[in-house]
Amino acid sequence: MSKNLTSRTQDYSKWYNELVVKADLAENSGVRGCMVIKPYGYAIWEKMQQELDRLFKETGHSNAYFPLFVPKSMFEAEETNAEGFAKECAIVTHYRLKNDPDQKGKLIVDPNAKLEEELIVRPTSEAIIWSTYKNWIQSYRDLPLLINQWANVVRWEMRTRLFLRTAEFLWQEGHTAHATREEAIEESEKMMHVYADFAERFMAIPVIKGLKSPSERFAGAEETYCIEALMQDGKALQAGTSHFLGQNFAKAFDVKFAGQDGKLDYVWGTSWGVSTRLMGALVMTHSDDNGLVLPPNLAPIQVVIVPIYKSDEEYAAVSAKANEISDQLKRFGIRVKFDNRTTHKPGFKFNEYELKGVPLRIAIGPKDLENGTVELARRDTLTKEVAAVDGIATLVVDLLEQIQQTLFQKAESFRNEHITAVDSYSEFKELLETKGGFFAAHWDGTAETEERIKDETKATIRCIPLDRTLEAGTCMYSGKPSIGRVLFAKAY
Amino acid sequence: MSKNLTSRTQDYSKWYNELVVKADLAENSGVRGCMVIKPYGYAIWEKMQQELDRLFKETGHSNAYFPLFVPKSMFEAEETNAEGFAKECAIVTHYRLKNDPDQKGKLIVDPNAKLEEELIVRPTSEAIIWSTYKNWIQSYRDLPLLINQWANVVRWEMRTRLFLRTAEFLWQEGHTAHATREEAIEESEKMMHVYADFAERFMAIPVIKGLKSPSERFAGAEETYCIEALMQDGKALQAGTSHFLGQNFAKAFDVKFAGQDGKLDYVWGTSWGVSTRLMGALVMTHSDDNGLVLPPNLAPIQVVIVPIYKSDEEYAAVSAKANEISDQLKRFGIRVKFDNRTTHKPGFKFNEYELKGVPLRIAIGPKDLENGTVELARRDTLTKEVAAVDGIATLVVDLLEQIQQTLFQKAESFRNEHITAVDSYSEFKELLETKGGFFAAHWDGTAETEERIKDETKATIRCIPLDRTLEAGTCMYSGKPSIGRVLFAKAY
Repeated sequence: MSKNLTSRTQDYSKWYNELVVKADLAENSGVRGCMVIKPYGYAIWEKMQQELDRLFKETGHSNAYFPLFVPKSMFEAEETNAEGFAKECAIVTHYRLKNDPDQKGKLIVDPNAKLEEELIVRPTSEAIIWSTYKNWIQSYRDLPLLINQWANVVRWEMRTRLFLRTAEFLWQEGHTAHATREEAIEESEKMMHVYADFAERFMAIPVIKGLKSPSERFAGAEETYCIEALMQDGKALQAGTSHFLGQNFAKAFDVKFAGQDGKLDYVWGTSWGVSTRLMGALVMTHSDDNGLVLPPNLAPIQVVIVPIYKSDEEYAAVSAKANEISDQLKRFGIRVKFDNRTTHKPGFKFNEYELKGVPLRIAIGPKDLENGTVELARRDTLTKEVAAVDGIATLVVDLLEQIQQTLFQKAESFRNEHITAVDSYSEFKELLETKGGFFAAHWDGTAETEERIKDETKATIRCIPLDRTLEAGTCMYSGKPSIGRVLFAKAY
Repeated sequence: MSKNLTSRTQDYSKWYNELVVKADLAENSGVRGCMVIKPYGYAIWEKMQQELDRLFKETGHSNAYFPLFVPKSMFEAEETNAEGFAKECAIVTHYRLKNDPDQKGKLIVDPNAKLEEELIVRPTSEAIIWSTYKNWIQSYRDLPLLINQWANVVRWEMRTRLFLRTAEFLWQEGHTAHATREEAIEESEKMMHVYADFAERFMAIPVIKGLKSPSERFAGAEETYCIEALMQDGKALQAGTSHFLGQNFAKAFDVKFAGQDGKLDYVWGTSWGVSTRLMGALVMTHSDDNGLVLPPNLAPIQVVIVPIYKSDEEYAAVSAKANEISDQLKRFGIRVKFDNRTTHKPGFKFNEYELKGVPLRIAIGPKDLENGTVELARRDTLTKEVAAVDGIATLVVDLLEQIQQTLFQKAESFRNEHITAVDSYSEFKELLETKGGFFAAHWDGTAETEERIKDETKATIRCIPLDRTLEAGTCMYSGKPSIGRVLFAKAY
């Protein structure tokens, strides 16, 4: 199996596409730009959802559900948002099909069933949610309102790629309302930290926290916080955003509250989201030419046990021990699968689980039974060791923890090696092509310079890192003064 | 609060609508026919989802995700299905908005962005899923394929009611493929039992398992299994369906598999689903004129603790004890909330939690501190008792279990009292209006009779109960021979 995978150096993009399909994560559907998330891929997404949902609830948020459709007029209410977002989207204009009178078995749209007002399939839900919040918020006692929604959204993308950019995708969107500017900013920052924490501890992906430049901000936000990750091909990927919306949506939808002093004021808002795009980041951060590499914290199967045998008697003896080990691991809360299929050879299974990124493989054969051992293989390092069955569970727990750490450290080293400080535009352009990664450079703060650099190199400002040190310098492009470096990169 | 609720005898339908909104379950949105599921309502739905998901996984199913849109031509593939289903639906015809050249700030649908083929927002996913299964299934080794999807679907209903009938609703849809007819039938039956088990053990709703008559079957199914519940107003509610699809969809989408003997054959299918409609059933089965009554197994808050105090000192002392009790209950896995708001009086809180159906309320005041007691109030019976703080956790666990049982038994008695055997059509018509409920009657098995009865009385055949005893009789309407009784009722 793995031999059929294009290598990363050969064609990174092809490697990614092949891997996503062959590892049973997702595939293109018969509907333009829409993907099917296959059971194995969905199981990983479910693990992500579970953990994120736990983190959202721990920070005081509740889930709710708002309509899929947004009437066109609601989009017009928040002009900046409409300007930036609502253009490429799926539009419902009719509500009935009827039998084609001219062709038996065919259906046509009933022209008499035209909607009075077109409905947009939500590309994001600020409009519908803020129009609802208007009725939910009267006084400071109703604040803060901390709500999250797990939903599908649609953006009519022309060029799509599995997980990274699809017309329909799954995500969560938090929408909160607060009594003060400070509290809303604090919330936006908090959720950025929650995302970073999740990315690093669960996905084993190191991220840089920062602010978007005004041109890269969410339309309708006053400030966009983001976390940026680096893929193995040296391109950046925005892994999550958290927006401080100011009073923009409150003003657009007339959401006011009476303060403790009785005075009316517009409420302050935030919104924040991560999507199935994270699946793409996960694949591109850790996987290799043999297939997927999954961090144990998100792996649907953490350990697979493969029996080695030549006869039915051997199969029976090996299986008995394998079941014993499986039960033991389950008692330690490990997600283990004993692959007892007799229709497939061990070599086939080894390849399959390598391709699917199962962190640990245990092989057990007749020799092992004699010696009281098993063979343990790590997916991340592709190393093997012989281990005693005695105490196997604690060893496995340790190894899974080690794999989780190793993946993070490896990705972090790679990322750190690919943050390059550059002071001249020519150096930047050269290294952007030869080395890739993030470039810490001075920028004059203008949208004009930013756009020119983008046009000339395809690199964008990924973020203004929160932890940057202020230092006087000159913009690498314009030579004008700058107060500190920002991070440029080509990005997904 | 509760005093503002219309009573059930006064106007059952109004009572329901008011309750759903006032108990913070859901509300109508600014989008025709679409509801907003509010955080409290969504928390109950999440509990349902969790348990159903666990049951699906226990029975070998995996989750996956398929596109929201179905191209029109896919609907045409399965004619019977298209005939029965696809007519009233949301149709996407365009993919871009643009600024209105005539009116600043307004948006219009870009006429140049017309889709070549219209996309239907899924009313159900058989078509898209079976067109995908075609590529997933080649041999008997790929079977059974046991997949479930949690998703939103849209059916353009003209008259909508919160939870019971909305244009968009949330549901799960299982879609399975099997090598034999017998296995597919076994799967359809198994899932009906899973639904019944869930309804009875978690929702405390007794259900009747049965088969739909051909006219009430899902279009495209060979057999539809269902569970039917009875609401307090004597109307039935279909709480879940499980369809044996035969080879209908396999033939429509050309899904064949090679058997062990190498011969090609069409696969056998099932599909099964329950939706947010269950929320409506939950409300209408247990709630009363004071508000919601929730079974403890699904209550987001199982126990609420309300402090009684007159001074800051009393508040401090009472709160300390309340926190202690709360911690103790949490250690027993009980979902408990200590409502320590000082902005609201105990009476207000009592009303609020009564309205929201919290199964148990603990009130604790200065006298209780002296006596080492609390006041315990049951939502279902509206009874109160004084209980010792010592051993409170085990008492609460017992009481919650008792409440769960009591609710089921009460609903079961009501349901059983409302299954009436009738032998004449005039008796049926009279009791249908005066008593309501299910009517066990002989039917000649023809669609014609079924339709006439429906036209004349609005009652439909809810199901042919699986456990019915075969007995020769004569149809109450036509006088023709019948082999056993079926259940008629008016239904939601």
